[in-house]
Amino acid sequence: MTFRPLAGLALLTLMISSAYGQTPHLPPPETVRLDRLQLMQGFPPPADKRIDASNFLNQYPNIRWAFHHMRELLPTRNIARGSGTPYQLPQGEDRQQDINALEFTGPDGARMAFGDYLTATYADATIIMKDGKVIYEAYHEGMPADQPHIMWSMTKSFLGLLATQLIEEGVLRADALVTDYVPELSESGWQGATLQQLLNMTADIDYSEVYADAESDVVKYALAAGMVPAPDGFTGERDLYSYLPTIGAAEEHGQAFRYRTVHTETLGWVLRRATGKHTADLISERIWQKLGAEHDAYMLLDRNGAEWAGAGMNATLRDLARFGEMMRLEGKLNGEQIVSPEVVRSIREGADREAFKASGRDFQPGYSYRNQWWISHNKDGAFEALGVHGQTIHVNPAVGLVVVRLSSHPVATSAHTFPMTLPAMEALADRLR
Amino acid sequence: MTFRPLAGLALLTLMISSAYGQTPHLPPPETVRLDRLQLMQGFPPPADKRIDASNFLNQYPNIRWAFHHMRELLPTRNIARGSGTPYQLPQGEDRQQDINALEFTGPDGARMAFGDYLTATYADATIIMKDGKVIYEAYHEGMPADQPHIMWSMTKSFLGLLATQLIEEGVLRADALVTDYVPELSESGWQGATLQQLLNMTADIDYSEVYADAESDVVKYALAAGMVPAPDGFTGERDLYSYLPTIGAAEEHGQAFRYRTVHTETLGWVLRRATGKHTADLISERIWQKLGAEHDAYMLLDRNGAEWAGAGMNATLRDLARFGEMMRLEGKLNGEQIVSPEVVRSIREGADREAFKASGRDFQPGYSYRNQWWISHNKDGAFEALGVHGQTIHVNPAVGLVVVRLSSHPVATSAHTFPMTLPAMEALADRLR
Repeated sequence: MTFRPLAGLALLTLMISSAYGQTPHLPPPETVRLDRLQLMQGFPPPADKRIDASNFLNQYPNIRWAFHHMRELLPTRNIARGSGTPYQLPQGEDRQQDINALEFTGPDGARMAFGDYLTATYADATIIMKDGKVIYEAYHEGMPADQPHIMWSMTKSFLGLLATQLIEEGVLRADALVTDYVPELSESGWQGATLQQLLNMTADIDYSEVYADAESDVVKYALAAGMVPAPDGFTGERDLYSYLPTIGAAEEHGQAFRYRTVHTETLGWVLRRATGKHTADLISERIWQKLGAEHDAYMLLDRNGAEWAGAGMNATLRDLARFGEMMRLEGKLNGEQIVSPEVVRSIREGADREAFKASGRDFQPGYSYRNQWWISHNKDGAFEALGVHGQTIHVNPAVGLVVVRLSSHPVATSAHTFPMTLPAMEALADRLR
Repeated sequence: MTFRPLAGLALLTLMISSAYGQTPHLPPPETVRLDRLQLMQGFPPPADKRIDASNFLNQYPNIRWAFHHMRELLPTRNIARGSGTPYQLPQGEDRQQDINALEFTGPDGARMAFGDYLTATYADATIIMKDGKVIYEAYHEGMPADQPHIMWSMTKSFLGLLATQLIEEGVLRADALVTDYVPELSESGWQGATLQQLLNMTADIDYSEVYADAESDVVKYALAAGMVPAPDGFTGERDLYSYLPTIGAAEEHGQAFRYRTVHTETLGWVLRRATGKHTADLISERIWQKLGAEHDAYMLLDRNGAEWAGAGMNATLRDLARFGEMMRLEGKLNGEQIVSPEVVRSIREGADREAFKASGRDFQPGYSYRNQWWISHNKDGAFEALGVHGQTIHVNPAVGLVVVRLSSHPVATSAHTFPMTLPAMEALADRLR
């Protein structure tokens, strides 16, 4: 197996580029089932079926295996479930057949069945709960139920929830400056930004999104986090704490929502400084151990042991269903008030919908982004945690609906999956209402 | 933080060299308590307290932190405990004070207290069980109870136990050739060796032990396994399946015991080929899930996802006590016959003590090595799993004694710790007899 960090970097750039340019050519999902792909099978696997840290991020179909084997590729920190009994998810009537046949109008105007939507978005695993009971649970394409799957940006919503809780407790102040907590950022673009602006991603920074440029910031971020091996001769920053202070200033803070993962990396830094705890330990102590999680979860790490706060959490489908239920029930599950009801209500209120429009995310009409959660402002008060490649936790309090979907869509954006997810969730709510 | 793979390699060579040469200069153990060392504390940790994949193996005191944070440095595969209730280790009378004061004659002829022996061997955690009850449990130097600790070569004893069980079941044949299972080795030094010779390490291979030579095989092994980053320009093998077939032939098989970790790497390959399962999954399904383990364990991986079968298992102290108890009770624990009693009895019978003498391990007088276990042949029938830097599982069936000791002695050998461990275990047995 040849080690090709430069090729990997080029491919990463290409992949991210395609996500924001024209519609890429996608392999038919039914031809790339995990159980047929035979990735990483055998001792050793055939050379053309091997996946390691240099080729997981940038090559389809490798992500289809890699997304539930991240710890086999990279360093991780455990999120301990503790020693309590798991919270048993109650089983409801099995509605799988019914729901798979449910039709809705897709983004191209054609009718689409829910089951075909899951296939078209390269779903790995899907669970649907109605009024606290499991009515749909499927592991597609050979994905095992007990393997944590990378959540990508759904990680952000865990960070945002913890920050909101810590504000509620008075440990953090929403109107404090980011640099009050992390003085190392006082010369950076976060100078002058408040914690609330960081949480809502209305702090502004000089973070270029020219994805076709190998020098662009998103590639620098991936290299700093250790998502991709450094190319030979690379002299840039190789850890997050060195990288974040190099990001410069842009426009005035507080004007527009602009979605940038590095805001959450900075939020992770703030939370560690304020609590003295690793992000993984904070999640374990305040959420995972109380939730009655069935499996340990884990966080991916950079070379200094700093978690990828904006992208690096991995958890099983059913444990994320427990988390979604807890959010639906305003912080209460497993006989315990895990976060305060005010915290969940505050998040669900949402933020400035006008500021959201600046992001150009037309596929989320009417949305706002508050404390690292996506707020639909629809009639049911639905809100979401979302991650690239199609990761979704959708909570609809009015209908009593929680949907968790883990997936590995070939393109690293929500722009290809969310236009289907939006009408799919609406159709599901109407059916179960 | 400067990345210095070449320096790391040189230091690795130096450290291993010192282990087999003159007595190295050791830092006083009481000056290197984890809770005073402040390694990897802070966000980020100070530059001189940072540990990553490039400086864990080769620098003391870094190992004192790294040995129970291996997954934060390298890729790993989970050894799932399953969803059963943990087997509760019964608590006996607390004998900690009594045992710490217990005196024995050390290798230099001076009297030594058991507590001082633990300090002198840089113990991280120690548990002692008598007749199935915990009478001593201590986490030294700030080691947390719930963190898996690297077992180094105690891993081998898990592989040997599984192989013996699979021979008992007829899945493997002790007299079959290694190359019957792994044809890729037919041009290697293992050509002509039987599985039993592999298990007893009496197969002979051209595996140099000139530790001061940076080209020596043990360094090649560490690089192939991914224990150390490859130096710039390194062109050697970078994974175990590529490396093992390059090891050549030596003398006739079956004559002498010579301890070589690569024999167990080949055993791991045999077990994977025979069962179609990863080593981690085999341990999980056949041992860990049945044992009532309290925590998941894990295996370290090379870049192809192959476990370090000879060195890469990590587990908590109490889970290893459960394992030791199971071995004491001839395969039975937690209401289940986990391996057959004949399997444990067969291991305890030991092997050829004359063949053992060829190894030059004078610090283990009268011992033999059978199926990856150290057999004392003493009057109590004591037997052991051992790992470098002082890892020990000591089982004394006659006295009903199980001792597990995890540690981080500065030198990567048993030669500095075992001469204290042998009289310490004898004194402990006599006190508890």
